[in-house]
Amino acid sequence: MKNKYFLEWSVGLSEAFGEEPVKMVKAQVPGNANLDWLVGTNMPDWKQGANVNLNQIKELEDKWWLYEAQLPAISLEVGEQLFFVTEGIDYQYRIFINGQEAAEHEGMFSTVEVPVDSSGEMERLIQIWIAPSPKDELGTKDTREEAAQSCKPAVSYGWDWHPRLLPVGIWEETYLEVRPKAYLKNTNITYQLAEDYSLAQVHFAAEIIGDGEVVFTVYDAEATTVLNANNDETKEIEKPKLWWCNGYGEPYLYSFKAVLMVDGKVIDEEVGTIGFRTIKLVMNEGTWEEPLNFPKGRSAAPITIELNGVSIFGKGSNWVNPEVFPGTITRERYLELIDLALEANFNIFRVWGGGIINKKDFYELCDERGILIWQEFMLSCNDYRDSEHYLEILEQEARSIIARLKGHPCLAIWCGGNELFNNWSKMTDQSAALRLLNKLCYELDKDRPYLMTSPVFGMAHGSYTFRYLGGDNREVYEVMPQAHNTAYTEFGVPSISNLETCAAIAPIEELFPLEENEMTIAHHAFGAWMGATWSCLDILEDYFGTAKCLEDLITWSQWQQGEGLKCIYEEARRQKPYCSMAINWCYNEPWPTLANCSIINYPSTPKKSFYDVAAACRSQLVSARIPKFSWVGGEIFSIDLWLLNDGRELIPAGNAKVELQIGDKIYPMQTWDYEEVMPNENLEGPTLRMKLPEVTQGKEEGVIGLGQNAAKRSRNEWQKMTLAIKAGEMSSEYQLHFLV
Amino acid sequence: MKNKYFLEWSVGLSEAFGEEPVKMVKAQVPGNANLDWLVGTNMPDWKQGANVNLNQIKELEDKWWLYEAQLPAISLEVGEQLFFVTEGIDYQYRIFINGQEAAEHEGMFSTVEVPVDSSGEMERLIQIWIAPSPKDELGTKDTREEAAQSCKPAVSYGWDWHPRLLPVGIWEETYLEVRPKAYLKNTNITYQLAEDYSLAQVHFAAEIIGDGEVVFTVYDAEATTVLNANNDETKEIEKPKLWWCNGYGEPYLYSFKAVLMVDGKVIDEEVGTIGFRTIKLVMNEGTWEEPLNFPKGRSAAPITIELNGVSIFGKGSNWVNPEVFPGTITRERYLELIDLALEANFNIFRVWGGGIINKKDFYELCDERGILIWQEFMLSCNDYRDSEHYLEILEQEARSIIARLKGHPCLAIWCGGNELFNNWSKMTDQSAALRLLNKLCYELDKDRPYLMTSPVFGMAHGSYTFRYLGGDNREVYEVMPQAHNTAYTEFGVPSISNLETCAAIAPIEELFPLEENEMTIAHHAFGAWMGATWSCLDILEDYFGTAKCLEDLITWSQWQQGEGLKCIYEEARRQKPYCSMAINWCYNEPWPTLANCSIINYPSTPKKSFYDVAAACRSQLVSARIPKFSWVGGEIFSIDLWLLNDGRELIPAGNAKVELQIGDKIYPMQTWDYEEVMPNENLEGPTLRMKLPEVTQGKEEGVIGLGQNAAKRSRNEWQKMTLAIKAGEMSSEYQLHFLV
Repeated sequence: MKNKYFLEWSVGLSEAFGEEPVKMVKAQVPGNANLDWLVGTNMPDWKQGANVNLNQIKELEDKWWLYEAQLPAISLEVGEQLFFVTEGIDYQYRIFINGQEAAEHEGMFSTVEVPVDSSGEMERLIQIWIAPSPKDELGTKDTREEAAQSCKPAVSYGWDWHPRLLPVGIWEETYLEVRPKAYLKNTNITYQLAEDYSLAQVHFAAEIIGDGEVVFTVYDAEATTVLNANNDETKEIEKPKLWWCNGYGEPYLYSFKAVLMVDGKVIDEEVGTIGFRTIKLVMNEGTWEEPLNFPKGRSAAPITIELNGVSIFGKGSNWVNPEVFPGTITRERYLELIDLALEANFNIFRVWGGGIINKKDFYELCDERGILIWQEFMLSCNDYRDSEHYLEILEQEARSIIARLKGHPCLAIWCGGNELFNNWSKMTDQSAALRLLNKLCYELDKDRPYLMTSPVFGMAHGSYTFRYLGGDNREVYEVMPQAHNTAYTEFGVPSISNLETCAAIAPIEELFPLEENEMTIAHHAFGAWMGATWSCLDILEDYFGTAKCLEDLITWSQWQQGEGLKCIYEEARRQKPYCSMAINWCYNEPWPTLANCSIINYPSTPKKSFYDVAAACRSQLVSARIPKFSWVGGEIFSIDLWLLNDGRELIPAGNAKVELQIGDKIYPMQTWDYEEVMPNENLEGPTLRMKLPEVTQGKEEGVIGLGQNAAKRSRNEWQKMTLAIKAGEMSSEYQLHFLV
Repeated sequence: MKNKYFLEWSVGLSEAFGEEPVKMVKAQVPGNANLDWLVGTNMPDWKQGANVNLNQIKELEDKWWLYEAQLPAISLEVGEQLFFVTEGIDYQYRIFINGQEAAEHEGMFSTVEVPVDSSGEMERLIQIWIAPSPKDELGTKDTREEAAQSCKPAVSYGWDWHPRLLPVGIWEETYLEVRPKAYLKNTNITYQLAEDYSLAQVHFAAEIIGDGEVVFTVYDAEATTVLNANNDETKEIEKPKLWWCNGYGEPYLYSFKAVLMVDGKVIDEEVGTIGFRTIKLVMNEGTWEEPLNFPKGRSAAPITIELNGVSIFGKGSNWVNPEVFPGTITRERYLELIDLALEANFNIFRVWGGGIINKKDFYELCDERGILIWQEFMLSCNDYRDSEHYLEILEQEARSIIARLKGHPCLAIWCGGNELFNNWSKMTDQSAALRLLNKLCYELDKDRPYLMTSPVFGMAHGSYTFRYLGGDNREVYEVMPQAHNTAYTEFGVPSISNLETCAAIAPIEELFPLEENEMTIAHHAFGAWMGATWSCLDILEDYFGTAKCLEDLITWSQWQQGEGLKCIYEEARRQKPYCSMAINWCYNEPWPTLANCSIINYPSTPKKSFYDVAAACRSQLVSARIPKFSWVGGEIFSIDLWLLNDGRELIPAGNAKVELQIGDKIYPMQTWDYEEVMPNENLEGPTLRMKLPEVTQGKEEGVIGLGQNAAKRSRNEWQKMTLAIKAGEMSSEYQLHFLV
């Protein structure tokens, strides 16, 4: 059997390669060198205040780092070999073993392994020198543009919700491994499903180093043996249980064990899982009919996920690095975030191209939980130019990533990267990097869809605010019904963070009134994207008036975030089947922000909007299209009623009762008698109208006006107006704003 | 040296493989078996009348064909080897030499070579059995859909300007070849140009079978030696003369000779040409600024050809097979058609994916003449499904095509095929065939742009008529200025063919009045696309009244075709730089049609529209945007004036004099004083207006009315109104329709 030995590492920094560090600190492996340094030298907490801007933190990004570990004396049996294996070091490095250079490497997503001679009298030392993070010389200093010629995630170079902090270090599992005289190098299990899914033809293959025989055993979820197979053998499984994503069925996994025998003795084994499913991107209904007139362009690109022959409405969120220092991400962090996704009724994550390719736990957990993965390569918002060196590293990294992930049933789509075909990136269909990735995905993983970027033609990103910024004040309620896209794979509404998250950044008294300063800029309340976009104080002021405390801002912004996101998710669902996906920007965040579009605060604390989104993403939902957020007495309130049905169950005939509650008072609107709704289909219902009562309350009575302008002119008091709809087991509630 | 021996072939047909044909006829090689059969058995001329529908012609498509040739006795010197080589047999075949099966092959675009044992006593016979043309079982019988699982051009299965006739046979050079003991297999000359084009680094490589040494010599266009190089050597050429397309410079070609020496003796040589240029597809100006609003999609795909760093406005035409039986195409046919393209001021052909990949003469002549080639693979208007067998043949054929063509400087763009992303084809970005072609082009010819299809996002095809069919009667004058596309790579206006072309089909007296019958349907005057689309008799009647003879129809339709195409080419040029290409449907035709969108009749006879297009495509042009075709007295006639400038010369300041001629009378409109116009830029000039005189003539005097409706109400007499603009050396003339 292979045996792993984990080492005790220390790490220090230096101005130049080979220059001995003055000081070494204890290193966490996997982890990040600069984080170890911050901890080990008792630096101020980089997550607090404006500490992230401290010179002593910023200057770390141009250092060389030296990791050192003593090699234990390991006695080997005859034929055994010792290897040093790292599954990922961030980002450019040289490995020295016993004073000899053993490897030189660029790229954090590929494994490096080198044989180790542990015999004899020697220094017994492993040293890893890590170079400063790459910075493209053509990129503007201190911006993400510096990432444009490397395969290091661009987000670390600074984003409007991520500090500029360039993690480096041994970020993935790294160990010594004693390997028997023969061992399993790779197992590769592939299958073909019959068109009617009645049969799986499963091919078993293992790469063996040395001589030996492999026997595969497949078990069902109850650990009962399904079959045995030899190497390079194809076996059939009749009526295989299929893997489904959340909301469409059980994410059924078989497991397998590959056992390597030499002379009748087991000397190595590998285990893994198999999920049987087909996945395709098919045309969205209605897109073949467009465009209509000559001169006629092409139809939109297909973006409907078809899982096991069933069209899936993709409901999910954009996954970003859950830690600024990705070396510290644990299985537990992944687990709590992925379990929250189930609670949110999600079935997909878009793993955004600005961040890392995740650790294997992430994909294993998504396999288990039934969350589809849209996996982007590490290109985002830059022009990744066609230099020979860049393409070489990209190919190496992509080959490694594809080989590592392609066995996961959760993996739905490969994508070149984020927003590459827009004018802030300026890549095109002809960019060599994206053609190369298409080629590699085809070569190594032909049956999985590949997109050059998001958005492709037909899809869209945005908007990112409750109402349009800069002159055009259209609310999301107006923007979304006018949109006509095949998928919305980014859209957001920002909010101020939960109180405890804010408190982790600075004392609350320093946060109210919320004003622009180094700390609030560092944590994205100001100076983010187009100014104070994420704290959106002017919008809050317009709608709600002057806040009396931070809690006011939190309540108001999270209210708007929740209502805004409900509007978008539900509108996207109403546009089904022309639209087939709604994925908000964004799910989580890598550190405590003061304001952000995320629906979960760092590390894993849902905002109010999380629960609103969860409600909007239920498979069966009674939904209302609402024209606007603010209303005043005397206006004709109107809603369009819908029944939304995703998944594979029908909605039986029934009726939906609609009520409006203003303050304590309930006004019944109407009851909608609806017919049975087929699985995966929606039903458009009636438009209901009701004259709003003149509610007199507060300083100015009987305000008459329309919507947000009214708010500007005569805001004094507002209260929640709750629209409640109940239909059988389904119910929905919308909280609107009522000016009195 | 290699020595070729051409054989005398005969051909016969059979019901089944191995069943000896009853009769053999003389075969033309290269040529086509079924054409040989038609000629050799004195069948009625398939190009005349409705003969193409004769059962004895139609039934040939399901026959087996046997080619036979006697093997000459060839005495070989020591070390020499004899090969049978075919550069292309259409389409599925088995080769038997001396009774032994030597090869089995599918695919007409790949070379097959087999060693031949010519010694000893034997039958000395080469036999080639060709199977019936493939027909996809899922395709509707007798339609192009039958081509959807093969690499045989879809056009042969029938198109609205091409008869259904499935050519088969030895269509490319096929011979015995005696090869010396060592010989050159491939030469591969590649180069890198310095960014400022001051230097070419040229790499010379040859694949040698056997042992020997290669010396390369490069000559300039005056046959002066530029350099010598050894195998696998890189040499520099300072200030290389660049290859330019027509209108932008000289298509300068160097030539090279590769000489293989054994023991100081030349035993083989290969010759070829080199054209130094860079080619890219870059974003069209203005496309990065779109789309504007959130939710925001991607920007359009790049489609501006950048040749040697200069943006080219692509002016050209869609090239279709010049013969129904492509085995019969000669260098002379290519030459006369390509020389006409120079006369038309074209710089590009789109080699449409419904047809063949051309013979090598075509690409050599385009290299020499400076015509860029947009080369599509053999996919058109079908869903070429992802079956294993199809993908295997496609890969084999594509590898062969790419290797054969990639050395040609004329080759600008690879493209997967025609209109694959529209609802009559239903392929998508995820189709394996198109991803495979991307992969192969990237692997084998990385620096040449690749498009999955035409149109890609931003581009458009159509319209194809002078005015919209079916209710919406908008003229091309109205449609085109409203279009907003990056490239128009198909658009057409049909016309009745030249009189001599019509006469080749049937006696003129059978052609007037032009009525629907088997013959007129066979030759596309009726039953083509949406009925009588190409003969467009109803449109002619609307504009011009009742024709008195075939010549009337020819004159009127060719008039509208010429004016319509001028409108489109010039409007596309006015939309530069947002638009960067205008390529009409279509250039030539494969047999005599009665009506077609082609601007050249079969075989190489220009229609009137050819000359109109040639005028519209001059590099420097004074151009008028005209609102409509028909005018009546008293109307305000208006035009928008432009100076259009392609190429690399400026237009000096000057003035343009605009006159309107009605009948014999000339009405001066105005003179436009314009400033210097920079190379490759346009200048938008004034809008001129003039009240048209009340011309009284004909039966009804002083008709007042507007445009084409007026024609319907009160047409009695019409005459040409000529708008003539002269500016320095430039002049333009538009002929409009004037109702009196």
